[in-house]
Amino acid sequence: MTRNDALALDAADPLAALREQFALPPGVIYLDGNSLGVLPRTTAARVQQVVSAEWGAELIKSWNSAGWITLPQRIGDKIARLVGAHAGELVVADSTSVNLFKVLSAALCIAHEESASRRVILSERSNFPTDLYIAEALARERGFELVLVEADEIRAKLDHRVAVLMLTHVNYRNGRMHDMAALTHAAHEAGALALWDLAHSAGAVPVDLHAARADFAVGCGYKYLNGGPGAPAFVWVHPDHADRFWQPLAGWMGHASPFEFTPGYRPAAGISRYLAGTPPVLSLAALECGVDTVLAAEAYGGMAALRAKSLALTRWFAELVEARCPQLTRVSPRDDATRGSQVCFAHPEIGYPVMQALIARGVIGDFRAPDILRFGFTPLYLRFVDVFDAAEHLQQVLASGEWRRPEFNQRAAVT
Amino acid sequence: MTRNDALALDAADPLAALREQFALPPGVIYLDGNSLGVLPRTTAARVQQVVSAEWGAELIKSWNSAGWITLPQRIGDKIARLVGAHAGELVVADSTSVNLFKVLSAALCIAHEESASRRVILSERSNFPTDLYIAEALARERGFELVLVEADEIRAKLDHRVAVLMLTHVNYRNGRMHDMAALTHAAHEAGALALWDLAHSAGAVPVDLHAARADFAVGCGYKYLNGGPGAPAFVWVHPDHADRFWQPLAGWMGHASPFEFTPGYRPAAGISRYLAGTPPVLSLAALECGVDTVLAAEAYGGMAALRAKSLALTRWFAELVEARCPQLTRVSPRDDATRGSQVCFAHPEIGYPVMQALIARGVIGDFRAPDILRFGFTPLYLRFVDVFDAAEHLQQVLASGEWRRPEFNQRAAVT
Repeated sequence: MTRNDALALDAADPLAALREQFALPPGVIYLDGNSLGVLPRTTAARVQQVVSAEWGAELIKSWNSAGWITLPQRIGDKIARLVGAHAGELVVADSTSVNLFKVLSAALCIAHEESASRRVILSERSNFPTDLYIAEALARERGFELVLVEADEIRAKLDHRVAVLMLTHVNYRNGRMHDMAALTHAAHEAGALALWDLAHSAGAVPVDLHAARADFAVGCGYKYLNGGPGAPAFVWVHPDHADRFWQPLAGWMGHASPFEFTPGYRPAAGISRYLAGTPPVLSLAALECGVDTVLAAEAYGGMAALRAKSLALTRWFAELVEARCPQLTRVSPRDDATRGSQVCFAHPEIGYPVMQALIARGVIGDFRAPDILRFGFTPLYLRFVDVFDAAEHLQQVLASGEWRRPEFNQRAAVT
Repeated sequence: MTRNDALALDAADPLAALREQFALPPGVIYLDGNSLGVLPRTTAARVQQVVSAEWGAELIKSWNSAGWITLPQRIGDKIARLVGAHAGELVVADSTSVNLFKVLSAALCIAHEESASRRVILSERSNFPTDLYIAEALARERGFELVLVEADEIRAKLDHRVAVLMLTHVNYRNGRMHDMAALTHAAHEAGALALWDLAHSAGAVPVDLHAARADFAVGCGYKYLNGGPGAPAFVWVHPDHADRFWQPLAGWMGHASPFEFTPGYRPAAGISRYLAGTPPVLSLAALECGVDTVLAAEAYGGMAALRAKSLALTRWFAELVEARCPQLTRVSPRDDATRGSQVCFAHPEIGYPVMQALIARGVIGDFRAPDILRFGFTPLYLRFVDVFDAAEHLQQVLASGEWRRPEFNQRAAVT
């Protein structure tokens, strides 16, 4: 595999034009779109329009005239197309953490109605911490137990005590992707519900919530959906469950008639009851631009085509790094079927400074404590030549010892 | 009172220069800053900087280099100055509804620890609905009862059954302002906690949470703080309570060490544990610009000076409308001590179309079902001549019958 091979792959890439949608900074190879997606070219103008024209000039009228009031549903319908949900089933709201609280709460209500003896929330020990924290707090409050196991133990632990199987589809640390349909089926066979966090899936890998018969899903707007820092998140509830419960964050935007200003809560029909307070419109507008960059791929084969390119990018990168950097241990799956859109390597000691040295060279990935070098591959804007160059830079960082420099060994607040 | 009197008051107004901070649309008299504050002149450029320079060019690094990670505390410290809280006691996060859930949950935990027999959340029947909905849902879940009374009945209902007195300081419908210190004292005398929603207070009327010995407070960023549509909200917890409980939305941003990525939840010290998920950075940046417009008044006498002007604006407007529009019934208090920064009139039938006709003339207030014409007065940018002209337009709308036009009688989704 040579750099010319990479350039040839880029020349033949049917998705190459999609990169033009983004304002990528020069000199940067960005392998951190799984932490914060890059800026779409349309976002700045759209946000400016919302600030100056919609808010500044039209003021309060824009809740109606600019459609602010329906942004959660409108953007939700767009995201639904990316995750195998139907229009009207998914809304944008709050953060992933807060949305997880809503749906996990609903899941525990259903489980409790069906059997008081099911008291376990089953999850993966290396699930993203905020999911575990929310589940821990809710379990404590409701008298449930959060049981954490390794990925390979999940099926064996799905017994009559499990109320909810709560997993992140693609693991944030190691990039391993669960078989959503198979595990959902196993959960249902055991009498449990299946709740999926799509933070590292939506816009990155094909997801079909209905085909998998999933019960609940949440996901993130600021990773592969390119919605901007802290973009609002999304929430989906299977239509069979959506009307069964109040969710505890029963804010006015989830009311059947918020502008009647009546004192008693009457939840809106369907997924809209999962809205809570007034949504952050500027951040919503940016999110819509980001989602549109992913929907633009529909003209080029959609998620299937993005997936094919993503698998090629990650396979290539992993092979190059394995061949050139024997100091690093590959953590991500070799098998295409179980690999998300990221590649991770571990080093027991120098992961942090190596990543900082790499970032200083313009190759941006991230470090996940205690030992993971994480590289995310967004097929919308990454080229094969980026993969080649990134691997070469990583080899050089390790070979040169430049990671030893003091400035690369000082931990920042956010890693 | 003539228009020349109004112009003379404006010429003598020591706060007049503060209006220059805002990008007010021409031809508009904006009396709806208690629903959505106007656009500060600095916001567009600041948001653009965040989008293009911080996100676009610096990408993930900006969590550290641009200080995104400390925005909730940094803006919180600024808002603290407006509500009588100390630095480090208040954070910006989520929506008012979601923050209310957090602090009401904590209040119920404290109440339950102290006495299992206190099972009542006491509030006002005409409190803002989202507050009542959140309380209703939480009460149902925790086995409490939400008891709603009229404002004048609150003291009499503060008995041994009350766990929490939950009030909005300035009522959204009628503009009546509670005596925060006196009611908090009465609540404490009865053994209850006091939780205040400052949605219509922060930036509008002087608030001193510590002097009032309040226990919890939440508030809104998009009204008098001019933070933009759906701007994030804020939450304050008295330092005596802040470390006592987990809050149920135990997301990673409230963790003691979020970037250690450990599976067990350890809450951050103090108010930072009231953070949940990743915050919407674009909307936070806009909020900071808005808060700064209020802090700019510190050079002109601060909240006391703003309050003096606000009282003069509302007194003047109410008197003009009462004299000119006998069809309308004044709802807001005459007494300065109990009037917030808004004036409301009721009409049993034609409130909605009258407001639409007024808006068509460029005088923007809002209608609150079933019968309230609501006018908010933001002393940062309103002039006495605006008050005069608005009253004159209202008189003309009523006298001309133009509110009868069909287009003014079609209800929009958002009122």
